[in-house]
Amino acid sequence: MHQHTGLIVAAHGSRRAESNEEIKRFAQNLATTLEQIHFVAPAFLELATPSIADAIQNAITAGCREIIVVPYFLAAGRHVIKDVPAIVAQCQQENPEIKIRLTQHLGVSQGLQAAVRELL
Amino acid sequence: MHQHTGLIVAAHGSRRAESNEEIKRFAQNLATTLEQIHFVAPAFLELATPSIADAIQNAITAGCREIIVVPYFLAAGRHVIKDVPAIVAQCQQENPEIKIRLTQHLGVSQGLQAAVRELL
Repeated sequence: MHQHTGLIVAAHGSRRAESNEEIKRFAQNLATTLEQIHFVAPAFLELATPSIADAIQNAITAGCREIIVVPYFLAAGRHVIKDVPAIVAQCQQENPEIKIRLTQHLGVSQGLQAAVRELL
Repeated sequence: MHQHTGLIVAAHGSRRAESNEEIKRFAQNLATTLEQIHFVAPAFLELATPSIADAIQNAITAGCREIIVVPYFLAAGRHVIKDVPAIVAQCQQENPEIKIRLTQHLGVSQGLQAAVRELL
């Protein structure tokens, strides 16, 4: 990862504006802890904007040559298995000069155990 | 928290069985790291079983006198704001001798930042 790397936090999206704002704040906070990445943005699969495709385009416009998409989902349902990969594949096809990488979804992160214990 | 405390990991639920299995495994793994809690179980708001109400009842049957419900959701949409609290309130009303406590939802946990960084 270098300074031309962008990170997209790809969440589900909600009809409730405050819920989407929460994801946006999360992405902003994440940005402050990732010095190697100069562009961090939230994106939504549905019900909110920007879409994942738009966020990827925004990252490219901002100068990113490598874009990492993190599926911000707790379990690998249809959205993680099919929908998000399909969007990323389409964006990759349209932007062959950019390296777009999809990580595993949040649910596999070992850090979630500590995250839950924090709430107790 | 003592040995008569139960913990319910209350997730959304998916049509995809593997997704629900993932939540069940998460709850099992969590159980091994929480020695003060002798009952840890997954539960689902919809599309999978056990329901949150059934999981609470199972915890009571298992001898829990205090039950902690963690909304395993990343953002406070309708499910976190209305649906899960309504179920917990109903269960509390039906079981006044049990102390049922609803925590904040997973999305507010500071540990999520580290959980995302782990995926990069």
